[in-house]
Formats: sequence, C-alpha cells, structure tokens
Amino acid sequence: MRVLLRVAYDGSAYCGYQIQDNGDTIQEELEKALLDLFCVPIETTGGSRTDAGVHSLGNPVVFDVETKMKAMSIAPALNVRLPEDIRVLSSVEVASDFHPHTAPSRKTYEYCIRVQRMEVPTERNRVLTVHVPLDLAAMQKAAGYLEGEHDFTSFSSIHAQVTSKVRTIYSCQVTCDERDTIPTYNPLDPEEEGFGRLIRIRVTGNGFLYNMVRIIAGTLVEVGRGAMKAEEVEKVLAAMDRSKAGPTAPAKGLTMIRTEFVEL
Amino acid sequence: MRVLLRVAYDGSAYCGYQIQDNGDTIQEELEKALLDLFCVPIETTGGSRTDAGVHSLGNPVVFDVETKMKAMSIAPALNVRLPEDIRVLSSVEVASDFHPHTAPSRKTYEYCIRVQRMEVPTERNRVLTVHVPLDLAAMQKAAGYLEGEHDFTSFSSIHAQVTSKVRTIYSCQVTCDERDTIPTYNPLDPEEEGFGRLIRIRVTGNGFLYNMVRIIAGTLVEVGRGAMKAEEVEKVLAAMDRSKAGPTAPAKGLTMIRTEFVEL
Repeated sequence: MRVLLRVAYDGSAYCGYQIQDNGDTIQEELEKALLDLFCVPIETTGGSRTDAGVHSLGNPVVFDVETKMKAMSIAPALNVRLPEDIRVLSSVEVASDFHPHTAPSRKTYEYCIRVQRMEVPTERNRVLTVHVPLDLAAMQKAAGYLEGEHDFTSFSSIHAQVTSKVRTIYSCQVTCDERDTIPTYNPLDPEEEGFGRLIRIRVTGNGFLYNMVRIIAGTLVEVGRGAMKAEEVEKVLAAMDRSKAGPTAPAKGLTMIRTEFVEL
Repeated sequence: MRVLLRVAYDGSAYCGYQIQDNGDTIQEELEKALLDLFCVPIETTGGSRTDAGVHSLGNPVVFDVETKMKAMSIAPALNVRLPEDIRVLSSVEVASDFHPHTAPSRKTYEYCIRVQRMEVPTERNRVLTVHVPLDLAAMQKAAGYLEGEHDFTSFSSIHAQVTSKVRTIYSCQVTCDERDTIPTYNPLDPEEEGFGRLIRIRVTGNGFLYNMVRIIAGTLVEVGRGAMKAEEVEKVLAAMDRSKAGPTAPAKGLTMIRTEFVEL
C-alpha cells in the first residue's frame, strides 16, 4: 500500500529534509526508522524539501510498503524509533498513484520575526531577531502585492531548477498579536515603534519556489525597516530579477505549517 | 548602585532559577557572568524562583555593584558571557531600596497546552501535550472563579513557606487562536472536539504561591477533560485544601511572561 505520513520536526539539528552526504537529515532518520520497523529498505518522497534549520508542523511524506499493519498504526510505531525532534503525527493509506509533488495542494508557511535588542532564548531556534523597528502597515501593504498569480522569478533562488516560476499566492498576511509582545525593558526603546513585537508572515499558495518564502520575508523586512517602499514590491515582481528583491532571510525563522491536498 | 536586570531564559537545561547543590541554575550562570565582568563576587536576588524546566521572558533580578559602567551597558556585557539559553534583555539603575519581592507588582504567567496525539517537536520543551479533547468553554468558566482576591491554599504546594496564602488574580484567561491549530491528520479525531488546538492559560496577579500556576493549569485540564465540573472550582477554593484541586501540571508548559512593578 501507499502510505502518507505527516511529519513534524524541529529542523535545528538537521541539514534539511532531503538526504545528503554532508550531515543528518530528517529523511535519513525517517528511512532508518522505517527500515527498523519493516526490515526492508524503504524509499520516501517528501512534499517539501525544507532547508537546514527550517521546521515543519506536518510535511507530507509518501512511501510504498507491503505489510499487514494497519496504516494508522505506523505513526506510533515510527515515533518510538525516531529522535524527539521528529514526530510522525499521522499515517494514512492513500491511492497507489498519489504523489505529494503532483497532487494539487495548498501549502502554508510562516516566518516569525521578533523586534528586540536581544534574542529571546525560548525562541532562539525558530524566530529571527531584528534589532530595528519595523513598520507593520508598510509590510502589510507590500505583502498585498504578492497575492495572486505571478511569475516569482525575483523571489526565487537563482539555483531553482524548475521550468515555470509562475505560482499563485492565495494569501500573504503580516500580523502582530499584542499578547506576544515582550517588552525590551530598555528606556531607550520607544514603545510606539513596536519594540518587543512578534511579527508573523503567513503565506498560503499552490506551491513555492526554492527559497521563495525566505526571500519574501527578507524583502518584507527591508520594507519594514524603510530600506524599500511598499509600492516597490510590485516593480520587483515585474522585474523578474532575483537581485531586485531583498535578501534571503535566515532559515530558522521559517516553519512549514501545513499542506492541504485538494483531492484528499 | 542597585541594578535591575530583566532575564529571559529557556529553562529546559536548568534545575530552576535559584542556586542549589544538585545542578545548573540560571542564578549560578548569572553570578558567574557577573563575577567575570566585575571581578568581584556579586549576589543576586531574583523576582521569581522558577522551577526546573520553567521558562521566562523577563524575570526581574536585582544586585548591587560599584562600577563606573553605565547601567544600560551591563546587559550586553553579560550576554557575551552567558550561554545562549539565557539572555539579559535590559539593565537599569533602580533606587537603592528597591527589592523585587517587596515592591508591589503585577506578575503574568502563561501555561500552554496542545491537544494532540503526538508531541509537536518544535514545542516539546515549552508546551504540554494532552491526548484527549478539552472543553474550552468549561475551562474558561472555571478560570473565572479564580479571579479576584482569594485564599489560594488549595492551589498551592503544601511545601509553600508563606504566612498568608491570600493573593489577588486580576485576570485568568483561557484562549485558543485558530491560527495556532495543527491538524492531527488522524481521521479518527473529530475536528469539532478541538484536536490540534493550542490552549493558552494566561494569568495575572499580585503574586503567586509555590506551584500555584501549575496547579491552576492542572485543575483547568481536569475541568477541560470532564473529570471536574467548572462550578466545583469555587468549592475547591473554599475548601482551602490542596488535595481538592487537580494535579500540578508539568513545569515545561509554564513561562513567566512579565513582572510589572507599580512604582517603576
């Protein structure tokens, strides 16, 4: 049968999702656990090849296996064989021709930014610290230009190996919940400039190019700190030139929130 | 001068805030950094003696030092001497008779609970996983009984060493933000029962007894899973008997959010 796993992980200790020569990966840990469980080597295919340091709350992973086990019993059996920074949230049987790369889907990522002088220890592996105030309204306006169907060449790594760079972003929301604010306690930081805020960039689309969410985050930070005008984002898109967008924001602030398959 | 630090930490690796014989503590790390900076032993007093595994976003810590350094320069000088799971967010000079235990204050703690079959790796050190559905409305109703001035004997460890167990809770809010929900992806989990939810218990008061917030959280979980009725919480308070309340919830779900001093 073909099995679909939803795999959550803290990516801090890994060189990314996909197996590679130079270090530990999520996929390698998963395949070791599958080998231990089924006593045969099993190849897996992950829906998102997240980079080193990127986290996930449910990356879809597919593999084929011949077994009498019920599909739903596979998740707990894998979890006792996995390190504590990787957990399989569920395992279900899917059609034998289901494939996470070709099945139409809505993917959601979140990038988190803390405006604070010092890094907050409880967040140190999953939130980017920015040391200057960010203009939330400008970031929200800039994010609006990214929604819709566009060619995202400007927002994709020059190393992206795909033929079409056209993707649809259903929503790109920049939010800040006052409850998540941590005062800087620094008398020099004017509260009205938003020091201490946690800013979340949440983006849902039908697919993302290599580094796309991190480049979107890096560009929105440029807008937030006033180095780029919100309106310029429209021109950056139109330029289809990676060098016009902002820098690629660090991996650790990024979490793959979910992938919803239209057919499932 | 007397200096007030705001100290944030990930408590996972420590035996608690206060120095003790059997392991690493936040206070010990702070005092080592202070010794290294000022070349004299310095004793500190922390506002909250958080337990092993409890986190903080700004525990107030006070000490006296004779130095020509500006107070605000002490925080960055300490941070380069501290491990990455402890950060001093700020350092300011306060009156020479200021003391974090006696200065009137409003303290806020948060306890986080995820309703999920499996522990979510990115949250594993800071959120309690509960494997059964929780009735949010019942928990909110129960929390309401705790607000106001009460004798919290039932909600305090029998080892609490204080004369009066009367405290005022200004607010005790149980909330759930839909954006924080992580689907379990398990077809057996009915969505309407709230599987995947993140529930936050945020409580602000003029002071808390030993284990008080963890016992409040443990009791609200009992109410949430239907083992105790919301109305019973009123009787539990009146009983002034620790055995009537729920269990002490695990430390890792607890974070000291902030302490606001009325005078500062």
